Amino acid sequence: MYFPSWLSQLYKGLSRPIRRTTQPIWGSLYRSLVQSSQRTNPEFNSFAVRTNTCGELRSSHLGQEVTLCGWIQYRRQNTFLVLRDFHGLVQVVIPQDESAASVKKILCEAPVESVVRVSGTVTSRPAGQENPKMPTGKIEIKVKTAELLNACKKLPFEIKDFMKKTEALRLQYRYLDLRSFQMQYNLRLRSQMVMKMREYLCNLHGFVDIETPTLFKRTPGGAKEFLVPSREPGKFYSLPQSPQQFKQLLMVGGLDRYFQVARCYRDEGSRPDRQPEFTQIDIEMSFVDQTGIQSLIEGLLQYSWPNDKDPVVVPFPTVTFTEALATYGTDKPDTRFGMKIIDISDVFRNTEIGFLQDALSKPHGTVKAICIPEGAEILPVFLNANRNWNSPVANFIMESQRLELIRLMDTQEEDVVLLTAGEHSKACSLLGKLRLECADLLETRGMVLRDPTLFSFLWVVDFPLFLPKEENPRELESAHHPFTAPHPSDIHLLYTEPKKARSQHYDLVLNGNEIGGGSIRIHNAELQRYILATLLKEDVKILSHLLQALDYGAPPHGGIALGLDRLICLVTGSPSIRDVIAFPKSFRGHDLMSNAPDSIPPEELKPYHIRVSWPTDSKAERAH
Amino acid sequence: MYFPSWLSQLYKGLSRPIRRTTQPIWGSLYRSLVQSSQRTNPEFNSFAVRTNTCGELRSSHLGQEVTLCGWIQYRRQNTFLVLRDFHGLVQVVIPQDESAASVKKILCEAPVESVVRVSGTVTSRPAGQENPKMPTGKIEIKVKTAELLNACKKLPFEIKDFMKKTEALRLQYRYLDLRSFQMQYNLRLRSQMVMKMREYLCNLHGFVDIETPTLFKRTPGGAKEFLVPSREPGKFYSLPQSPQQFKQLLMVGGLDRYFQVARCYRDEGSRPDRQPEFTQIDIEMSFVDQTGIQSLIEGLLQYSWPNDKDPVVVPFPTVTFTEALATYGTDKPDTRFGMKIIDISDVFRNTEIGFLQDALSKPHGTVKAICIPEGAEILPVFLNANRNWNSPVANFIMESQRLELIRLMDTQEEDVVLLTAGEHSKACSLLGKLRLECADLLETRGMVLRDPTLFSFLWVVDFPLFLPKEENPRELESAHHPFTAPHPSDIHLLYTEPKKARSQHYDLVLNGNEIGGGSIRIHNAELQRYILATLLKEDVKILSHLLQALDYGAPPHGGIALGLDRLICLVTGSPSIRDVIAFPKSFRGHDLMSNAPDSIPPEELKPYHIRVSWPTDSKAERAH
Repeated sequence: MYFPSWLSQLYKGLSRPIRRTTQPIWGSLYRSLVQSSQRTNPEFNSFAVRTNTCGELRSSHLGQEVTLCGWIQYRRQNTFLVLRDFHGLVQVVIPQDESAASVKKILCEAPVESVVRVSGTVTSRPAGQENPKMPTGKIEIKVKTAELLNACKKLPFEIKDFMKKTEALRLQYRYLDLRSFQMQYNLRLRSQMVMKMREYLCNLHGFVDIETPTLFKRTPGGAKEFLVPSREPGKFYSLPQSPQQFKQLLMVGGLDRYFQVARCYRDEGSRPDRQPEFTQIDIEMSFVDQTGIQSLIEGLLQYSWPNDKDPVVVPFPTVTFTEALATYGTDKPDTRFGMKIIDISDVFRNTEIGFLQDALSKPHGTVKAICIPEGAEILPVFLNANRNWNSPVANFIMESQRLELIRLMDTQEEDVVLLTAGEHSKACSLLGKLRLECADLLETRGMVLRDPTLFSFLWVVDFPLFLPKEENPRELESAHHPFTAPHPSDIHLLYTEPKKARSQHYDLVLNGNEIGGGSIRIHNAELQRYILATLLKEDVKILSHLLQALDYGAPPHGGIALGLDRLICLVTGSPSIRDVIAFPKSFRGHDLMSNAPDSIPPEELKPYHIRVSWPTDSKAERAH
Repeated sequence: MYFPSWLSQLYKGLSRPIRRTTQPIWGSLYRSLVQSSQRTNPEFNSFAVRTNTCGELRSSHLGQEVTLCGWIQYRRQNTFLVLRDFHGLVQVVIPQDESAASVKKILCEAPVESVVRVSGTVTSRPAGQENPKMPTGKIEIKVKTAELLNACKKLPFEIKDFMKKTEALRLQYRYLDLRSFQMQYNLRLRSQMVMKMREYLCNLHGFVDIETPTLFKRTPGGAKEFLVPSREPGKFYSLPQSPQQFKQLLMVGGLDRYFQVARCYRDEGSRPDRQPEFTQIDIEMSFVDQTGIQSLIEGLLQYSWPNDKDPVVVPFPTVTFTEALATYGTDKPDTRFGMKIIDISDVFRNTEIGFLQDALSKPHGTVKAICIPEGAEILPVFLNANRNWNSPVANFIMESQRLELIRLMDTQEEDVVLLTAGEHSKACSLLGKLRLECADLLETRGMVLRDPTLFSFLWVVDFPLFLPKEENPRELESAHHPFTAPHPSDIHLLYTEPKKARSQHYDLVLNGNEIGGGSIRIHNAELQRYILATLLKEDVKILSHLLQALDYGAPPHGGIALGLDRLICLVTGSPSIRDVIAFPKSFRGHDLMSNAPDSIPPEELKPYHIRVSWPTDSKAERAH
């Protein structure tokens, strides 16, 4: 009995449609999870009123008297009952003799998903009735006593509906969804992976787990920070987006090696697959350089990686921001597959094709292309697939150019070449998006481009320190945050051409997702003041405590933050970060189970000296 | 060189007045911390640009070339320099030969508390110059190269002022205060104790670390909950006081054994030694009874207890709420010393003393007393200490009563007996307070009543389930929270005399402080509805999700929460929980370093549809 059939037939309804990842059956997977991350198995029955979990019983337990607690998963002809707990499933034989009438009544009348406690003897299943695909499939429990601990009322929906229903229903009845195999697996894997990270940081490398405040003050540019009214009129706390300032202050305070599994907050309104509160593995250390942080993180992921996945290979490859953009059209390349961007400008230096000529004549003008392997079959819209350069442009390509192109792009028959011309970064960015879309398209047609068991890590380094502001490109803003140190080779550029200065920021990318980012920080107060006040035109008063701290013997330091939700999402192959969070918010930021956020009576707002500005209020004001 | 002299003379200023706890010197204490909680020493120099920490060098390192990073602690006659990092202190010899002029210049000119990197050789100190009380006292570093990593500006106060100044100054310059021995010790001990708790829960007993939301909705009676405005007009999140509902929903979701080091929030305005955000070790499990949770916690504390303290002895003693009140006049008795309350009502059954007669004639009327050992010397105000029952009451006490009293109270010469008469619980409560005040008084006079190395744990059980409401004593409120299960023997009382029903709540008390509390919860939806709606007259709509969850196969479950800040405060012997929190708020809820909470420009309030009600606004409104 493999998971898919088990899921749909036996495990009635408290689960969800099948995912792309392979799904072993409950008991064995959980066992592998447990073994992978712990030296010895934990004792699951300590302090509890059971002797064993449902999932652990084997032939070695034959003859033992056991007491089990669990949910009724399934009942067959008032004879058998399958009992479930977090650990797995076990078959229970309902006694049929008259002396056990009360036990039979309890077990036959309790609705599915009721909780019972049963005591009895572990026995062999009769010959021929073993289930070799169920970890407990050789045994069953001959029940002697039973107790109904809590009955389950009729569920408010057809169980099979729940399987198919929208995510909204799953979120509304999250406590039922949590009983599913997948959610149990995801949350337990998350807990164990974080535990291993803590062991690595705390026990192996002497990091100190320090909790920093979440009731803080507004940070510069903190427009996405939730506010918390205080009891002082007009004064608000902010919920920070990260412990950035605190972790730097800890370095000034000589705490040397800090980490925290930190709750962070970001109010972005409605954005899919973002959560208003999220968790990051937050790390900072003193007397370290960029390669030090990178090695630390590589070791961290290698150490904490689940054993049921392929091991992590270190060191991770590194590309510069410039290379990443030129090769993949993005700063978070998915390096599980090729289809790299090739610069074919030289092929067309003497072209007669007008738009190529035009593009190449401009500053940073380029011609770029990607090659879609076997793309001819799937891209009939763009290219009439008669396999012979039959594109609108093809007629104008000279034979020599054609041969050079085939050589440069390593093009095979059935391949499609997508070509664009224009300003370097825009051309790359466009092809980068097409590259991902074509990969999706190829995979929906059955080609395996991205091995689902492959985890492809990549460091991206040498980012620009500043970017032109969107609203006013003549002004600068930090590419990441204003505490990022400039690249040592580029410090002089800060005073001449700050736009060209690179930073000591680094991003960690996994399968095309940014899962972490960090930097070496500025530890010199003068440099920090110059960047904040002169280059960024920020109000330094709001950061005076940090600037002052840098003046009093701040050590050189750097750090990183890993996005835990996203990382676990990728490790478990989940379609959304909501699948690795016990009680996530909807994409509108609602808790669909409890109905948060909720209305508050006006008298409860009074101590905080705030009033609601109802949309009608402001209309009324305008009418005045 | 023991800590006190080292603190005041050598470790200039970045520390604080001496505490009651014994203070070993830095290096050795930190080493004992490390050894106590880890199987092998962590590698403190991995990934860093140093070869060793300052505190680790010994004679076994003689001849090694080392690179150290640290703060300049002290300089003597431009010859020696003491370098400090989190691990300890080491003596550095400043080279005097001309070829090393630049190194000498760096090390002699850098102000104290500047950060430097030095490289050199570990050598023996000249005979007679060893410092046997300094862990690195046999060696010194002959420096070859030195680099000034960051200079420390002149500190904004006299260093010796900082030592003596108010806590406000320490909080304003928290990053300097964190460099003190005591703060380093407190935060590192906290980190390591929590790590051991995680090992116990997660690795040994199969608990799952699950993060629950902090952006939630208002809970019934949640008047102390901070509000977080959302982008929907009039809708607010609340920052919950505990993950109570979520942990129960996890049990309904089959997560079975949950824990979390949970950030919690409570807005109590200004209260000394409370923090608006605090941390609890939050635990819940299914299929467990009260003794199961108690054993779990005893094991947890025993496992995580620092090795430099006396080991924790289990099981902890248990008293009922009724016994605790009768014996100690409080539900959180300090059991490190005696001075128990004795009921002496029977002695005075036939007394002629008016106020005693009067008290005994009333319902629950009692006469109670405590005996203050050797109290005669310290309580001259109450009793003229001529040692012969010379109190206003004494003349009216008959000889037989007197003998009986001496027997009951086990009174010795020089003791003082404090006696009160009145309603049982009021009399006990009064004597309970006097008991603690007398203990303080005796200790200020030099008597050691409470051994500072003693940790006296106590379970208090069988609390009442309900209390009369203060504002309307005919109505009931939950003694703890409305999800607490009634005592199994008292369920019938819910329908007849609910006031008399005991609960399955339990408190954990350490040295007279409540450090934890929990209960077996109600898992039956009908019972929960009856208590909420009929007995407590709560609006059940606000909890409909929880009631519904109980209907769908909720298992029996219970849990506990330990107050981490308070626990670490007691373990480290700190005078305030602010000393075990890296960045605490002042007692008015301010962050004195960054100046949070802060003003917010009105345009940043707009997305949240709120306005500030300035106190003058409402005056203006009243004037209309």
